[in-house]
Amino acid sequence: MDVFEAIARRQSYRGAFLEDPVPREELRRIVEAGLKAPSGRNAQTTEFVIVDDPELAGKIASLPGANRAVQTARAFIACIVDEKPEPVYEGFSFQVEDCAAAVENMLLAITALGLASVWVDGWLRVGGRAEEIGRLLGLPSGKRVRVLLPVGVPEETQPAREKKPFAERAWFNRYGRKD
Amino acid sequence: MDVFEAIARRQSYRGAFLEDPVPREELRRIVEAGLKAPSGRNAQTTEFVIVDDPELAGKIASLPGANRAVQTARAFIACIVDEKPEPVYEGFSFQVEDCAAAVENMLLAITALGLASVWVDGWLRVGGRAEEIGRLLGLPSGKRVRVLLPVGVPEETQPAREKKPFAERAWFNRYGRKD
Repeated sequence: MDVFEAIARRQSYRGAFLEDPVPREELRRIVEAGLKAPSGRNAQTTEFVIVDDPELAGKIASLPGANRAVQTARAFIACIVDEKPEPVYEGFSFQVEDCAAAVENMLLAITALGLASVWVDGWLRVGGRAEEIGRLLGLPSGKRVRVLLPVGVPEETQPAREKKPFAERAWFNRYGRKD
Repeated sequence: MDVFEAIARRQSYRGAFLEDPVPREELRRIVEAGLKAPSGRNAQTTEFVIVDDPELAGKIASLPGANRAVQTARAFIACIVDEKPEPVYEGFSFQVEDCAAAVENMLLAITALGLASVWVDGWLRVGGRAEEIGRLLGLPSGKRVRVLLPVGVPEETQPAREKKPFAERAWFNRYGRKD
Protein backbone atom coordinates (compact mmCIF):
# COMPACT_ATOMS: atom_id res chain seq x y z
CA MET A 1 0.00 0.00 0.00
CA ASP A 2 1.20 3.50 -0.86
CA VAL A 3 2.51 5.36 2.16
CA PHE A 4 0.13 8.32 1.72
CA GLU A 5 -2.80 5.92 1.44
CA ALA A 6 -1.75 4.07 4.59
CA ILE A 7 -1.44 7.40 6.45
CA ALA A 8 -4.90 8.42 5.25
CA ARG A 9 -6.53 5.07 6.03
CA ARG A 10 -5.01 4.47 9.48
CA GLN A 11 -7.73 4.68 12.12
CA SER A 12 -8.02 4.12 15.84
CA TYR A 13 -10.14 0.98 15.74
CA ARG A 14 -12.04 0.32 18.97
CA GLY A 15 -14.56 -2.21 17.60
CA ALA A 16 -14.52 -6.01 17.68
CA PHE A 17 -12.08 -8.20 15.77
CA LEU A 18 -12.97 -11.28 13.75
CA GLU A 19 -11.74 -14.65 15.00
CA ASP A 20 -9.20 -14.96 12.19
CA PRO A 21 -5.76 -15.31 13.75
CA VAL A 22 -2.94 -12.99 12.72
CA PRO A 23 -0.09 -15.05 11.25
CA ARG A 24 3.29 -14.78 12.99
CA GLU A 25 4.85 -13.72 9.72
CA GLU A 26 2.59 -10.62 9.66
CA LEU A 27 3.18 -9.85 13.34
CA ARG A 28 6.91 -10.05 12.74
CA ARG A 29 6.62 -7.77 9.71
CA ILE A 30 4.71 -5.21 11.77
CA VAL A 31 7.30 -5.25 14.55
CA GLU A 32 10.14 -5.03 12.00
CA ALA A 33 8.52 -1.76 10.91
CA GLY A 34 8.67 -0.62 14.53
CA LEU A 35 12.33 -1.60 14.85
CA LYS A 36 13.16 0.60 11.85
CA ALA A 37 11.73 3.76 13.41
CA PRO A 38 14.13 6.56 14.28
CA SER A 39 15.26 7.01 17.88
CA GLY A 40 17.15 9.77 19.64
CA ARG A 41 20.90 9.14 19.13
CA ASN A 42 19.87 5.83 17.53
CA ALA A 43 19.50 4.44 21.06
CA GLN A 44 16.70 2.06 19.97
CA THR A 45 15.12 2.22 23.40
CA THR A 46 11.81 0.49 22.64
CA GLU A 47 11.47 -3.27 23.00
CA PHE A 48 8.51 -5.38 21.92
CA VAL A 49 6.66 -8.39 23.24
CA ILE A 50 4.28 -9.91 20.70
CA VAL A 51 1.42 -11.86 22.25
CA ASP A 52 -0.18 -14.52 20.07
CA ASP A 53 -0.69 -17.23 22.67
CA PRO A 54 -4.49 -17.40 23.05
CA GLU A 55 -4.40 -18.01 26.81
CA LEU A 56 -2.06 -15.09 27.42
CA ALA A 57 -4.04 -12.85 25.06
CA GLY A 58 -7.20 -13.82 26.95
CA LYS A 59 -5.69 -12.65 30.23
CA ILE A 60 -4.94 -9.22 28.78
CA ALA A 61 -8.36 -9.09 27.12
CA SER A 62 -10.12 -9.65 30.44
CA LEU A 63 -8.51 -6.75 32.29
CA PRO A 64 -11.18 -4.44 33.70
CA GLY A 65 -12.36 -1.60 31.47
CA ALA A 66 -10.97 -3.02 28.24
CA ASN A 67 -12.51 -1.68 25.04
CA ARG A 68 -13.94 -4.09 22.44
CA ALA A 69 -10.71 -4.12 20.46
CA VAL A 70 -8.69 -5.23 23.50
CA GLN A 71 -11.40 -7.71 24.50
CA THR A 72 -11.41 -9.44 21.13
CA ALA A 73 -7.84 -8.99 19.83
CA ARG A 74 -6.21 -12.07 18.32
CA ALA A 75 -2.78 -10.67 19.11
CA PHE A 76 -1.13 -7.82 21.00
CA ILE A 77 2.08 -5.92 20.57
CA ALA A 78 3.35 -4.51 23.86
CA CYS A 79 5.94 -1.72 23.62
CA ILE A 80 8.41 -1.82 26.50
CA VAL A 81 10.45 1.09 27.82
CA ASP A 82 12.65 1.76 30.84
CA GLU A 83 11.10 2.90 34.12
CA LYS A 84 14.08 5.24 34.50
CA PRO A 85 15.25 6.19 31.02
CA GLU A 86 18.94 6.77 30.32
CA PRO A 87 19.77 10.28 29.14
CA VAL A 88 21.31 10.21 25.66
CA TYR A 89 21.89 13.93 24.98
CA GLU A 90 22.49 16.80 27.41
CA GLY A 91 20.60 14.98 30.15
CA PHE A 92 17.55 14.28 27.99
CA SER A 93 16.01 10.93 27.16
CA PHE A 94 13.89 10.57 24.05
CA GLN A 95 12.35 7.20 24.84
CA VAL A 96 8.78 8.53 24.75
CA GLU A 97 9.37 9.91 21.27
CA ASP A 98 11.25 6.75 20.21
CA CYS A 99 8.34 4.58 21.31
CA ALA A 100 5.73 6.80 19.64
CA ALA A 101 7.60 6.75 16.32
CA ALA A 102 7.81 2.96 16.48
CA VAL A 103 4.08 2.76 17.27
CA GLU A 104 3.21 4.97 14.31
CA ASN A 105 5.31 2.84 11.94
CA MET A 106 3.53 -0.27 13.26
CA LEU A 107 0.08 1.29 12.90
CA LEU A 108 0.85 2.08 9.26
CA ALA A 109 2.13 -1.47 8.68
CA ILE A 110 -1.02 -2.85 10.34
CA THR A 111 -3.17 -0.70 8.06
CA ALA A 112 -1.25 -1.78 4.95
CA LEU A 113 -1.80 -5.45 5.86
CA GLY A 114 -5.59 -4.95 6.10
CA LEU A 115 -5.55 -5.29 9.88
CA ALA A 116 -6.57 -2.75 12.50
CA SER A 117 -5.43 -1.54 15.91
CA VAL A 118 -5.67 1.30 18.39
CA TRP A 119 -2.90 3.03 20.36
CA VAL A 120 -3.61 2.10 23.99
CA ASP A 121 -1.64 4.16 26.52
CA GLY A 122 -3.58 6.10 29.15
CA TRP A 123 -5.68 3.06 30.06
CA LEU A 124 -2.50 1.20 31.03
CA ARG A 125 -1.40 3.93 33.40
CA VAL A 126 -4.35 3.66 35.77
CA GLY A 127 -5.57 0.77 37.89
CA GLY A 128 -2.21 -1.04 37.76
CA ARG A 129 -2.86 -2.41 34.28
CA ALA A 130 0.66 -1.77 32.92
CA GLU A 131 2.09 -3.56 35.96
CA GLU A 132 -0.28 -6.50 35.55
CA ILE A 133 0.54 -6.89 31.86
CA GLY A 134 4.23 -6.55 32.72
CA ARG A 135 3.89 -9.49 35.11
CA LEU A 136 2.07 -11.56 32.47
CA LEU A 137 4.85 -10.87 29.96
CA GLY A 138 7.68 -11.56 32.42
CA LEU A 139 9.20 -8.08 32.31
CA PRO A 140 12.33 -7.71 34.42
CA SER A 141 12.33 -4.98 37.06
CA GLY A 142 12.99 -1.56 35.58
CA LYS A 143 10.98 -2.28 32.42
CA ARG A 144 7.44 -1.10 31.79
CA VAL A 145 4.70 -1.54 29.19
CA ARG A 146 4.19 1.90 27.72
CA VAL A 147 1.89 1.19 24.78
CA LEU A 148 -0.31 -1.78 23.91
CA LEU A 149 -1.57 -2.45 20.39
CA PRO A 150 -4.41 -4.95 20.01
CA VAL A 151 -4.20 -6.44 16.51
CA GLY A 152 -6.71 -8.31 14.39
CA VAL A 153 -8.98 -8.30 11.37
CA PRO A 154 -11.64 -5.63 12.00
CA GLU A 155 -15.25 -6.80 12.10
CA GLU A 156 -16.73 -3.41 11.23
CA THR A 157 -15.77 -0.45 9.14
CA GLN A 158 -15.76 2.82 10.99
CA PRO A 159 -15.99 6.36 9.67
CA ALA A 160 -12.73 8.29 9.95
CA ARG A 161 -12.40 10.58 12.97
CA GLU A 162 -12.69 14.19 11.97
CA LYS A 163 -9.47 16.16 11.86
CA LYS A 164 -9.10 19.92 11.90
CA PRO A 165 -8.20 21.32 8.47
CA PHE A 166 -4.73 22.48 7.48
CA ALA A 167 -5.60 26.18 7.90
CA GLU A 168 -6.38 25.67 11.60
CA ARG A 169 -3.14 23.88 12.47
CA ALA A 170 -0.51 24.88 9.92
CA TRP A 171 0.87 28.08 8.44
CA PHE A 172 3.66 29.26 6.16
CA ASN A 173 6.50 31.28 7.69
CA ARG A 174 4.59 32.75 10.62
CA TYR A 175 2.39 31.20 13.31
CA GLY A 176 -1.29 31.88 12.68
CA ARG A 177 -0.73 33.73 9.42
CA LYS A 178 -3.45 33.52 6.79
CA ASP A 179 -1.97 33.25 3.27
CA MET B 1 6.08 4.52 -2.56
CA ASP B 2 5.03 1.41 -0.67
CA VAL B 3 4.73 2.01 3.05
CA PHE B 4 7.18 -0.77 3.97
CA GLU B 5 9.69 0.62 1.50
CA ALA B 6 9.31 4.14 2.92
CA ILE B 7 9.82 2.78 6.45
CA ALA B 8 12.93 0.91 5.32
CA ARG B 9 14.39 3.83 3.33
CA ARG B 10 13.77 6.61 5.88
CA GLN B 11 17.08 7.87 7.22
CA SER B 12 18.26 10.62 9.52
CA TYR B 13 19.99 12.79 6.93
CA ARG B 14 22.60 15.15 8.35
CA GLY B 15 24.41 15.99 5.11
CA ALA B 16 24.05 18.96 2.78
CA PHE B 17 21.00 19.65 0.63
CA LEU B 18 21.04 20.67 -3.02
CA GLU B 19 19.87 24.17 -3.91
CA ASP B 20 16.65 22.87 -5.51
CA PRO B 21 13.73 24.46 -3.69
CA VAL B 22 10.97 22.28 -2.24
CA PRO B 23 7.64 23.23 -3.88
CA ARG B 24 4.89 24.42 -1.55
CA GLU B 25 2.63 21.69 -2.85
CA GLU B 26 5.06 19.07 -1.54
CA LEU B 27 5.53 20.84 1.79
CA ARG B 28 1.79 20.98 2.20
CA ARG B 29 1.49 17.28 1.34
CA ILE B 30 4.10 16.43 3.97
CA VAL B 31 2.33 18.46 6.65
CA GLU B 32 -1.04 16.96 5.66
CA ALA B 33 0.53 13.58 6.50
CA GLY B 34 1.45 14.99 9.91
CA LEU B 35 -2.08 16.31 10.47
CA LYS B 36 -3.46 12.81 9.89
CA ALA B 37 -1.37 11.21 12.65
CA PRO B 38 -3.19 9.83 15.67
CA SER B 39 -3.30 11.88 18.88
CA GLY B 40 -4.41 11.05 22.40
CA ARG B 41 -8.18 11.58 22.59
CA ASN B 42 -7.92 13.02 19.07
CA ALA B 43 -6.80 16.28 20.69
CA GLN B 44 -4.60 17.16 17.65
CA THR B 45 -2.18 19.04 19.84
CA THR B 46 0.65 19.59 17.35
CA GLU B 47 0.71 22.67 15.15
CA PHE B 48 3.08 23.33 12.26
CA VAL B 49 4.91 26.30 10.84
CA ILE B 50 6.40 25.65 7.42
CA VAL B 51 9.35 27.85 6.57
CA ASP B 52 10.08 28.37 2.90
CA ASP B 53 11.00 32.05 2.95
CA PRO B 54 14.73 32.06 2.11
CA GLU B 55 15.55 34.91 4.51
CA LEU B 56 13.74 33.28 7.42
CA ALA B 57 15.25 29.88 6.59
CA GLY B 58 18.68 31.50 6.52
CA LYS B 59 18.20 32.83 10.05
CA ILE B 60 17.42 29.34 11.34
CA ALA B 61 20.29 27.87 9.33
CA SER B 62 22.77 30.23 10.93
CA LEU B 63 22.00 29.33 14.55
CA PRO B 64 25.15 28.18 16.34
CA GLY B 65 25.99 24.48 16.20
CA ALA B 66 23.65 23.66 13.28
CA ASN B 67 24.43 20.46 11.40
CA ARG B 68 24.90 20.54 7.62
CA ALA B 69 21.27 19.61 7.00
CA VAL B 70 20.02 22.58 9.04
CA GLN B 71 22.66 24.87 7.50
CA THR B 72 21.62 24.07 3.94
CA ALA B 73 17.90 23.23 4.22
CA ARG B 74 15.65 24.80 1.59
CA ALA B 75 12.69 24.56 3.94
CA PHE B 76 11.88 23.73 7.54
CA ILE B 77 8.85 22.29 9.27
CA ALA B 78 8.61 23.40 12.89
CA CYS B 79 6.34 21.36 15.15
CA ILE B 80 4.70 23.47 17.83
CA VAL B 81 3.36 22.26 21.17
CA ASP B 82 2.10 23.87 24.36
CA GLU B 83 4.54 24.92 27.07
CA LYS B 84 2.01 23.65 29.62
CA PRO B 85 0.06 20.84 27.97
CA GLU B 86 -3.61 20.30 28.78
CA PRO B 87 -4.40 16.93 30.35
CA VAL B 88 -6.77 14.94 28.15
CA TYR B 89 -7.15 11.68 30.14
CA GLU B 90 -6.84 11.07 33.89
CA GLY B 91 -4.49 14.02 34.27
CA PHE B 92 -2.18 12.91 31.44
CA SER B 93 -1.22 14.82 28.33
CA PHE B 94 -0.04 12.91 25.28
CA GLN B 95 1.32 15.86 23.35
CA VAL B 96 4.85 14.44 23.19
CA GLU B 97 3.51 11.24 21.66
CA ASP B 98 1.14 13.18 19.38
CA CYS B 99 4.02 15.27 18.06
CA ALA B 100 6.29 12.25 17.57
CA ALA B 101 3.63 10.36 15.60
CA ALA B 102 3.11 13.41 13.37
CA VAL B 103 6.87 13.71 12.85
CA GLU B 104 7.16 10.05 11.86
CA ASN B 105 4.34 10.40 9.33
CA MET B 106 6.08 13.45 7.87
CA LEU B 107 9.47 11.70 7.70
CA LEU B 108 7.86 8.86 5.74
CA ALA B 109 6.14 11.36 3.42
CA ILE B 110 9.46 13.17 2.93
CA THR B 111 11.14 9.85 2.06
CA ALA B 112 8.39 8.91 -0.40
CA LEU B 113 8.81 12.26 -2.18
CA GLY B 114 12.55 11.67 -2.69
CA LEU B 115 13.46 14.32 -0.13
CA ALA B 116 15.36 13.93 3.12
CA SER B 117 15.26 15.26 6.68
CA VAL B 118 16.40 14.61 10.21
CA TRP B 119 14.43 14.80 13.47
CA VAL B 120 15.96 17.74 15.35
CA ASP B 121 14.90 17.95 19.00
CA GLY B 122 17.66 17.93 21.66
CA TRP B 123 19.63 20.64 19.84
CA LEU B 124 16.64 22.99 20.21
CA ARG B 125 16.47 22.50 23.95
CA VAL B 126 19.89 23.92 24.73
CA GLY B 127 21.33 27.37 24.15
CA GLY B 128 17.91 28.98 23.80
CA ARG B 129 17.48 27.78 20.21
CA ALA B 130 13.81 26.78 20.54
CA GLU B 131 13.05 30.20 22.00
CA GLU B 132 14.96 31.97 19.22
CA ILE B 133 13.16 30.02 16.48
CA GLY B 134 9.88 30.64 18.29
CA ARG B 135 10.55 34.39 18.10
CA LEU B 136 11.42 34.15 14.39
CA LEU B 137 8.15 32.30 13.71
CA GLY B 138 6.00 34.64 15.81
CA LEU B 139 4.85 32.05 18.33
CA PRO B 140 2.44 33.39 20.94
CA SER B 141 3.37 32.95 24.56
CA GLY B 142 2.67 29.45 25.83
CA LYS B 143 3.72 27.84 22.54
CA ARG B 144 7.08 26.19 21.90
CA VAL B 145 8.99 24.62 19.00
CA ARG B 146 9.41 20.99 19.98
CA VAL B 147 10.80 19.46 16.78
CA LEU B 148 12.42 20.98 13.70
CA LEU B 149 12.63 19.16 10.38
CA PRO B 150 15.03 20.57 7.79
CA VAL B 151 13.78 19.53 4.36
CA GLY B 152 15.46 19.37 0.96
CA VAL B 153 16.86 17.25 -1.82
CA PRO B 154 19.83 15.34 -0.38
CA GLU B 155 23.23 15.98 -1.98
CA GLU B 156 24.73 12.68 -0.87
CA THR B 157 23.56 9.16 -0.26
CA GLN B 158 24.36 7.84 3.17
CA PRO B 159 24.57 4.26 4.39
CA ALA B 160 21.68 3.26 6.64
CA ARG B 161 22.36 3.43 10.38
CA GLU B 162 22.72 0.00 11.85
CA LYS B 163 19.77 -1.30 13.87
CA LYS B 164 19.79 -4.14 16.36
CA PRO B 165 18.18 -7.31 14.96
CA PHE B 166 14.69 -8.49 15.86
CA ALA B 167 15.97 -11.15 18.28
CA GLU B 168 17.64 -8.51 20.46
CA ARG B 169 14.59 -6.27 20.80
CA ALA B 170 11.48 -8.41 20.25
CA TRP B 171 10.08 -11.67 21.54
CA PHE B 172 6.92 -13.73 21.34
CA ASN B 173 4.79 -14.07 24.47
CA ARG B 174 7.53 -13.54 27.06
CA TYR B 175 10.17 -10.83 27.48
CA GLY B 176 13.62 -12.10 26.48
CA ARG B 177 12.42 -15.53 25.42
CA LYS B 178 14.34 -17.27 22.64
CA ASP B 179 11.97 -19.16 20.31
